[in-house]
Amino acid sequence: MKDWTNMKIALLGYGTVGRGVDKIIGERVDDVEVSRILELPDRLSDPRMTSEYEDIVSDPEIGIVVECMGGIEPAHAFIMRALEAGKHVVTSNKAVVAAHFAEFAACALEHGVSLFIEASVGGGIPWIAGIEKARRVDEVTSFSGIMNGTTNYIVYAMLKDGADFGEVLAEAQSLGYAERDPSADIDGIDVKNKTIITASVAFDVACEKDIPVSGIRNLTKADLDLFGERGLTVKLLGRGVQQDSRYAVAVEPVAVPLDSLEANVPGNFNLVTLDATTVGELKFYGQGAGSLPTGNAIVQDVLDCVRGTRAPEYDFSRGLAYDPELLRASYVIRAAHAPAGSEPYVEGAWLVRDVTAADARALLDEALKTDPAAFMASLA
Amino acid sequence: MKDWTNMKIALLGYGTVGRGVDKIIGERVDDVEVSRILELPDRLSDPRMTSEYEDIVSDPEIGIVVECMGGIEPAHAFIMRALEAGKHVVTSNKAVVAAHFAEFAACALEHGVSLFIEASVGGGIPWIAGIEKARRVDEVTSFSGIMNGTTNYIVYAMLKDGADFGEVLAEAQSLGYAERDPSADIDGIDVKNKTIITASVAFDVACEKDIPVSGIRNLTKADLDLFGERGLTVKLLGRGVQQDSRYAVAVEPVAVPLDSLEANVPGNFNLVTLDATTVGELKFYGQGAGSLPTGNAIVQDVLDCVRGTRAPEYDFSRGLAYDPELLRASYVIRAAHAPAGSEPYVEGAWLVRDVTAADARALLDEALKTDPAAFMASLA
Repeated sequence: MKDWTNMKIALLGYGTVGRGVDKIIGERVDDVEVSRILELPDRLSDPRMTSEYEDIVSDPEIGIVVECMGGIEPAHAFIMRALEAGKHVVTSNKAVVAAHFAEFAACALEHGVSLFIEASVGGGIPWIAGIEKARRVDEVTSFSGIMNGTTNYIVYAMLKDGADFGEVLAEAQSLGYAERDPSADIDGIDVKNKTIITASVAFDVACEKDIPVSGIRNLTKADLDLFGERGLTVKLLGRGVQQDSRYAVAVEPVAVPLDSLEANVPGNFNLVTLDATTVGELKFYGQGAGSLPTGNAIVQDVLDCVRGTRAPEYDFSRGLAYDPELLRASYVIRAAHAPAGSEPYVEGAWLVRDVTAADARALLDEALKTDPAAFMASLA
Repeated sequence: MKDWTNMKIALLGYGTVGRGVDKIIGERVDDVEVSRILELPDRLSDPRMTSEYEDIVSDPEIGIVVECMGGIEPAHAFIMRALEAGKHVVTSNKAVVAAHFAEFAACALEHGVSLFIEASVGGGIPWIAGIEKARRVDEVTSFSGIMNGTTNYIVYAMLKDGADFGEVLAEAQSLGYAERDPSADIDGIDVKNKTIITASVAFDVACEKDIPVSGIRNLTKADLDLFGERGLTVKLLGRGVQQDSRYAVAVEPVAVPLDSLEANVPGNFNLVTLDATTVGELKFYGQGAGSLPTGNAIVQDVLDCVRGTRAPEYDFSRGLAYDPELLRASYVIRAAHAPAGSEPYVEGAWLVRDVTAADARALLDEALKTDPAAFMASLA
């Protein structure tokens, strides 16, 4: 790496995260300067701003491109061009990393630069670096976590205030915790992206993208009461497991014990867990989103890059096989009709024993055909 | 730093931790070799072993001395000699670091080597490195944590099984979680050492050693029931706070909400929390002791040293002032007589409002004179 005494970086995007990065670097970091910012033509409010990506990617003084635009394109194209131009890339964009991780990783390797993705999962939590550190010594055998603050805010408020889904979602929207179109959060798409990224880093594999995903859109107060009577509550978890050169991942509501750490994660916080050979179980908790926490994760990546303390190299050539059989559990399905192979659980809900996450998702799809309000949760 | 392709290290001590380090390096790390082990003369069971420290400290091939003997002397003298000989030191010994941190740090700085202490607090949890990382960007404004697995095992079992202190302690002793003489754990001495180390790293100060420390020796099932009726349970916490160039630390039982993460930390696990300027609240959870988790922390330090990814420099010249006024709370004291300035709380227990941790500890000392079974907990 070049010896940078005052590393110049460019920000792509100046929304919540971009502004957080600019503020933190401006106020708290001496050896890094945000010299250019890519913005839309009608928003060029700062002399550092340009609407031409060419100004940034062709600027030889810029060593790191920080992408915090979100979305797939043009983020994907911009990241590729930055890597090809020999610039390190730091990104908070889980959608584009989940979609193109292997392509980015290969391009970074080819051009002798690094891709830093800490901010794409778990906001300010040192999760990606934590996994990478664990893997220096151990195999990561499994991971799981509350990776989406919006849905945790919803289920926690439902549990604590006894409110129903719709009320809490409306409140979360008014507080800015949930989008006007909350689908990406409540249907598990955001967690899916973060789970794919986590699995890629934890298991060193270009993670399968066609994975079982269920959300909490249909979760009701009555569902929580049903589980509550059994000492359980529901959390939306992303998880993965590896064993004997095979791995599996899934995103789904999970019924966890009320006295687990997961059950007690409040508000919009995240809690992510890894299990590794010698260190055992490690959990990391913190703000999974927000201008300063996510900005902090980006700045930490920038500092690792500038100071040479971390230079992630993702090489997915290990060839782990995706095997849905590795993730089996029993499931409770609340639906108008009994799913195939189920037995009665309580009035209006059925238990399906020992099926894969993928098969459970197929049973839920079937149930949704006749009952669009059907809900499913895994029994841990 | 020298460029080591196959770094040779020496272990001082071959107990639980030393054996864990040797096993992990032997099985999982290619670029490091345990070439010498210091053991007692009657235990030289391995060709690498010697009972002469001179053999180790004068060996030019050894770049890192890993001290896992425990105790103050000769660990202190051995660490100083290693640093003076230009060897990096990695240690899991909280007692010696808490007692001599500033002396070690100055000596390491003077001889251009590093002191690595991850394993001295929180076992396999990346706590010390996590604080150091946070401090690259932020001020750490406060920390707190369950730092002792033995006492957490005891209070958790008392809460869950409704057992009394003595029974659970005996069980913990039979499982090897508690020492035959459990004083260092149940009187808070172990947590005191870890709190002093944490404060030194978090606040960049040679931490005051004369700090308020109370333990859980006198905690009864009735105490837990009393707090339980108020939605609280008791955990032994080490904590610290800094503000306006001043800081304070304390170790004491704290009544935490039953639905907090702290209350739900099971068995002998640890949970440590920091609060920092931009990243906000971060919590780290894991095994705080044990051969492999603590061995893992040591091996991670060794790898940081060998690969140059971390080179801790502790410089305590910042001169923060110790100010007990920064840690104020209300306290419940269960004792035969009403403490000065207290009001009735429930039958046999009193509430003292808004006093410093130091003043509360003085009130407990007074109460213990007439009631050797008196117990005190802070209300968060």
